[in-house]
Amino acid sequence: MLLESLREEVLDANLELVRRGLVLYTFGNVSGISRPDGLIAIKPSGVAYESMKAQDIVISDLDGRVVEGTLRPSSDLATHVELYKRFPGAGGVAHTHSEFATAWAQARRPIPCFGTTHADYFHGPVPVTPDLTPEEISGDYEKNTGLAICRLFDTLGTGDTQAVLVAGHAPFCWGQSASDASRTAVILESVARMAYYTLGIAEEAGPISRALHDKHYLRKHGKNAYYGQVQSK
Amino acid sequence: MLLESLREEVLDANLELVRRGLVLYTFGNVSGISRPDGLIAIKPSGVAYESMKAQDIVISDLDGRVVEGTLRPSSDLATHVELYKRFPGAGGVAHTHSEFATAWAQARRPIPCFGTTHADYFHGPVPVTPDLTPEEISGDYEKNTGLAICRLFDTLGTGDTQAVLVAGHAPFCWGQSASDASRTAVILESVARMAYYTLGIAEEAGPISRALHDKHYLRKHGKNAYYGQVQSK
Amino acid sequence: MLLESLREEVLDANLELVRRGLVLYTFGNVSGISRPDGLIAIKPSGVAYESMKAQDIVISDLDGRVVEGTLRPSSDLATHVELYKRFPGAGGVAHTHSEFATAWAQARRPIPCFGTTHADYFHGPVPVTPDLTPEEISGDYEKNTGLAICRLFDTLGTGDTQAVLVAGHAPFCWGQSASDASRTAVILESVARMAYYTLGIAEEAGPISRALHDKHYLRKHGKNAYYGQVQSK
Amino acid sequence: MLLESLREEVLDANLELVRRGLVLYTFGNVSGISRPDGLIAIKPSGVAYESMKAQDIVISDLDGRVVEGTLRPSSDLATHVELYKRFPGAGGVAHTHSEFATAWAQARRPIPCFGTTHADYFHGPVPVTPDLTPEEISGDYEKNTGLAICRLFDTLGTGDTQAVLVAGHAPFCWGQSASDASRTAVILESVARMAYYTLGIAEEAGPISRALHDKHYLRKHGKNAYYGQVQSK
Repeated sequence: MLLESLREEVLDANLELVRRGLVLYTFGNVSGISRPDGLIAIKPSGVAYESMKAQDIVISDLDGRVVEGTLRPSSDLATHVELYKRFPGAGGVAHTHSEFATAWAQARRPIPCFGTTHADYFHGPVPVTPDLTPEEISGDYEKNTGLAICRLFDTLGTGDTQAVLVAGHAPFCWGQSASDASRTAVILESVARMAYYTLGIAEEAGPISRALHDKHYLRKHGKNAYYGQVQSK
Repeated sequence: MLLESLREEVLDANLELVRRGLVLYTFGNVSGISRPDGLIAIKPSGVAYESMKAQDIVISDLDGRVVEGTLRPSSDLATHVELYKRFPGAGGVAHTHSEFATAWAQARRPIPCFGTTHADYFHGPVPVTPDLTPEEISGDYEKNTGLAICRLFDTLGTGDTQAVLVAGHAPFCWGQSASDASRTAVILESVARMAYYTLGIAEEAGPISRALHDKHYLRKHGKNAYYGQVQSK
Repeated sequence: MLLESLREEVLDANLELVRRGLVLYTFGNVSGISRPDGLIAIKPSGVAYESMKAQDIVISDLDGRVVEGTLRPSSDLATHVELYKRFPGAGGVAHTHSEFATAWAQARRPIPCFGTTHADYFHGPVPVTPDLTPEEISGDYEKNTGLAICRLFDTLGTGDTQAVLVAGHAPFCWGQSASDASRTAVILESVARMAYYTLGIAEEAGPISRALHDKHYLRKHGKNAYYGQVQSK
Repeated sequence: MLLESLREEVLDANLELVRRGLVLYTFGNVSGISRPDGLIAIKPSGVAYESMKAQDIVISDLDGRVVEGTLRPSSDLATHVELYKRFPGAGGVAHTHSEFATAWAQARRPIPCFGTTHADYFHGPVPVTPDLTPEEISGDYEKNTGLAICRLFDTLGTGDTQAVLVAGHAPFCWGQSASDASRTAVILESVARMAYYTLGIAEEAGPISRALHDKHYLRKHGKNAYYGQVQSK
């Protein structure tokens, strides 16, 4: 029953990527997790969004072993698994090749916080991983991608920014649910676009002040938030 | 009765931002004012456009106190209030994070008047505020944002350009009604896009002549206007 | 009867600009001419495309005097008139503020022929007029805009390129009919976009060879054309 | 019977270009081949996509002679023919003037492999042909375009990258079927867009490592592929 509704939410969170123009053909994948039983629901590999149904969503455990479903899970499952292990608050993970966020990942530049739209959602620049080594690539590649993200966040010492750019690859986002992770991916793309345009207007543009960054992030997050109708303090 | 139709117009002016692709999710907000009784109708905070109804539009007075409606008003209400106080001709205010206008705000560069499309609607460059101070940010932030805009227009000595870029944040636009303010936001975004492309083609591009700027602005505005069907001289 | 069908075609040619995303609100205007009786059918000034009907299309003579219709014609009518006088083969004229073509006009740079898409439709760079003088602006502005275009084509010595950029303003296009003029405006925008991107990839990019330019232009135009199903040699 | 279904597939592969926004008006053309009888089904020249029917698709032999159909084939047929002769695995060819891929062709720069999206589909940079000579242009132009592509691939020594940029012109793509060729054209455009944005963020951006490139290409292609549901090893 619970898995049934998780599958439905994960399907819808995947379709949100289509509705928002973030994915082409079978690109991208979103998963959600049921924390009590440690089960992950994820998009099947290489299946067209148009024909995807809730029962096509694959269920795996936290070791990436399929426990329900007849299709193969997204080939990026092992990356999702590492993110779920590292971030206990993550209820969903979204991976896309959305074009502007991917361009920043390809340029290997963190997205600076140029404005309050960024600050509303990400509490710092959106960081970029180092390149994977040839050994990490030839080994358990997708798992190693996840581990590289985790090491990066260990170094940065914060989990507040729920998005990362994998160098030469594309973004991964997470959030408290699959829907939330998808929405973060959509907003990241808009933020990446605006940061790109900002550079085009003023190559030397700098980030907003820490004071303004905190103000915007904290009016939407945490115990003093005052944006929206329902306060989840 | 009058508030009823104001709510309807404000709802539609908010939805215009969605139709024109200027807002994502709950981004942005438009308000309108009934000048005779000093009541402002504004979008509720953090509510999805898809499900918004006229009765969700919140009514406040010119001190920003809610006088009708069960939802909380947009967190930017205090900025709208300052603009209504400063510009007696303003019947509506629109705030978006539309991507190109926001990029100019993030780059902290006024949008130069590169052509007649700009001149048709804005009687000068679209100015950008100075950065807010840490005290303005930690204090009554949204009100201080409005005050910074007002001070800027005091300095510029003109109210003819009904749009402004808040540094590191995004644009605010106004007009004789909520619909007019929304339309200005849409046109500002197009003008911001064309100015961005212009820089990409000729980094050293300069503004059009004062003569051409005035010609275009005045064929659409004021007592000698001759554009359109109805002359409001 | 003939005017009836001209009005219908002109209405549809105007709506093509909406369908292709070339115009916002009341921006832009397309006209067509009935050469035998020298009557021009043109979009009314400042009327929304959504509600426009064939009977709203205004009929004027070649002096720009309205001879049929209750609405005022587009304020750019005088420019259209000059183009019809200068180019006897022109059956339609289209004016838009489409964003990329306008950006080239704002940058005051002719669009170089970077590739065969351009060569398929324009037999040379798309030229840009000089700035109008203050006297031309304060005088009969719209007529003087048309005269500036005509003088430019006198200098260039060719009427093969049915598009021009008015400096600091926007493009005008023409063709053998109103529909043809609209289509040219749509293709010009695509060509302007690709030329913009080309500069972004290779700032020093140069035009294609004269041989390739002629080959493409002439496989679509003139007595040796071999593109399409019907040969109008 | 077989030709009937080939025509249907070729029609749909052509329409895919419209659905994905890769073509304007009559731009572009897709063909498919029936290898057993050496017959090519191709879009007719200069026909609007909206009204195109399966019976409008023209059938030619491998010498480019029409063997079925009342319309004239795409003027680029001779280029398709050369590609079918050179690449025995090609079951379909797609030609578009999609704007970003065309911009790279106009800039005469190969598209570097900046990231894994590129690597997933193209096993190397997307190469660009040399300019055609005046003799190649004035001679059998479309056939010579095909021969220039073939010579380029002879030099590169690989057929793994099923896309090419013709200098100053636009891309040609191929694949195991007409649908596959269309899909490659769509993905090429996305890859071209992201490469363009990447340059805008980091002018000095370099390609991903050979190890990462091979990893991604080979997880989707060849005997060790593990992406998707059906393994065609």
